[in-house]
Amino acid sequence: MGANSRHALPAEYQRGLYEAIFRRRDIRNFIADEVPDEVLARVIVAAHHAASVGFTQPWDFIVVRDTARRREVKRVFEAEREANAALFTGERLRQFLSLKLEGILEAPLNLIITCEPDRFGPAVLGKVSIREVEVYSTCLAVGNLWLAARAEGLGVGWVSIVRNDALREIFSIPPHVIPVAYLCVGYVAAFPDRPLLESAQWASRMPARTLLHFDSWDGRTEGDGHSLSDLVQSPEIWRDLLEDAPPLSDDRKIECADVPNRIAKPRSE
Amino acid sequence: MGANSRHALPAEYQRGLYEAIFRRRDIRNFIADEVPDEVLARVIVAAHHAASVGFTQPWDFIVVRDTARRREVKRVFEAEREANAALFTGERLRQFLSLKLEGILEAPLNLIITCEPDRFGPAVLGKVSIREVEVYSTCLAVGNLWLAARAEGLGVGWVSIVRNDALREIFSIPPHVIPVAYLCVGYVAAFPDRPLLESAQWASRMPARTLLHFDSWDGRTEGDGHSLSDLVQSPEIWRDLLEDAPPLSDDRKIECADVPNRIAKPRSE
Repeated sequence: MGANSRHALPAEYQRGLYEAIFRRRDIRNFIADEVPDEVLARVIVAAHHAASVGFTQPWDFIVVRDTARRREVKRVFEAEREANAALFTGERLRQFLSLKLEGILEAPLNLIITCEPDRFGPAVLGKVSIREVEVYSTCLAVGNLWLAARAEGLGVGWVSIVRNDALREIFSIPPHVIPVAYLCVGYVAAFPDRPLLESAQWASRMPARTLLHFDSWDGRTEGDGHSLSDLVQSPEIWRDLLEDAPPLSDDRKIECADVPNRIAKPRSE
Repeated sequence: MGANSRHALPAEYQRGLYEAIFRRRDIRNFIADEVPDEVLARVIVAAHHAASVGFTQPWDFIVVRDTARRREVKRVFEAEREANAALFTGERLRQFLSLKLEGILEAPLNLIITCEPDRFGPAVLGKVSIREVEVYSTCLAVGNLWLAARAEGLGVGWVSIVRNDALREIFSIPPHVIPVAYLCVGYVAAFPDRPLLESAQWASRMPARTLLHFDSWDGRTEGDGHSLSDLVQSPEIWRDLLEDAPPLSDDRKIECADVPNRIAKPRSE
């Protein structure tokens, strides 16, 4: 560990974070077990410690267990799913219709994470030309919650096939508050190795190097002998992490997911 | 660990994730040390494994080292900061002007994370009434990168006091691509214990219980003897995690940040 990384977390902590990131899935199948309030509290506190523009903390959390309201959401989802289906034809449509895209009623609870812009008035540090900054912050809170849930063994599915006006009506959300994320939350029988839409061959993981630009959008090749484009696709970058993080005892060893393949299956194995 | 949490990550991995979440800071002060490409590669791969609507992976990464372009960004920042300052008066204005809000030129590199909506055409699974879903996904990528950076000992600061039209011009970003996050990235002399805007008394951390709603926006109290509102503010919820996660050997022990105060200072200590 170089002098410049003296603030790095220890290897097993680093690995914990990366494992949560690579094992997180968008979950649509839940088991009925209740989520203990203590676990729910931890993932909400994790969300509440996301970054926020001007430290505005613009989020709120609506914990939904009420079945009648969830049935209403499910009806909205069904109508929106039809609208979404209309965008596809042929084999793609057949595939779309075969996918389970939510667990609104099966999950033991739903959770809405909202954004209240200008919560403390219109003067916000960091909010000038880009009006959506508080929504961005709210997404960071969703991300924290999703990762914490994965670490806790809890599945989360984000249902984006809804209408915000309908959510506002069903949950009495004020007009100025934006329902950013409608989440289904609960334990799972399994966390799939790969994202659902990848295994269903709906889409493929893009090679990371194709997403890199250098100094400009049209700067597609690195100068100065840098090797970043190769490294983002190399298992080598995960080797130290594997060597430094002590192996887990057998009974706690977890099978590694396939992504990024590197934590799971280093070349040397 | 209950049967329903059999997919939970081991305690030291969980703790790694929570430590990264609670120790992450919005950084404005950097040291000059170069960021090794291997470290940069890992945090970009972490970002690339965020959730995305319809598995669209709508993000791109522009790695900026060029000083001339960064100077242009700095000029845009300065103008926008003036506009932002105009929102405040009196003591609040004095305070605003005293804050360092970016490290555009000091950081060894800047990183722009963009969002390309409809990258594979207008038919997107999960995109119907809510048009911003791909931007939400891009924010999740930013969040992953920010946490991975923290684990690597690398500071990240999000500069939102910019103009997207200016960023498009400076970096030749096509009109349909949204520059979601302009980040300064580099090693730091220290990760502050508390968020900058909290120590500067610009704003306070909101008590988590004030953010909770049950079944409806106006459902502010829990029924059924649930205790979530108490738990989100209790150090007790972190006790098991502290007891289950083996202590680190002394030379690798890291001083704990003050937030959420619970991982750092359980009541029993």
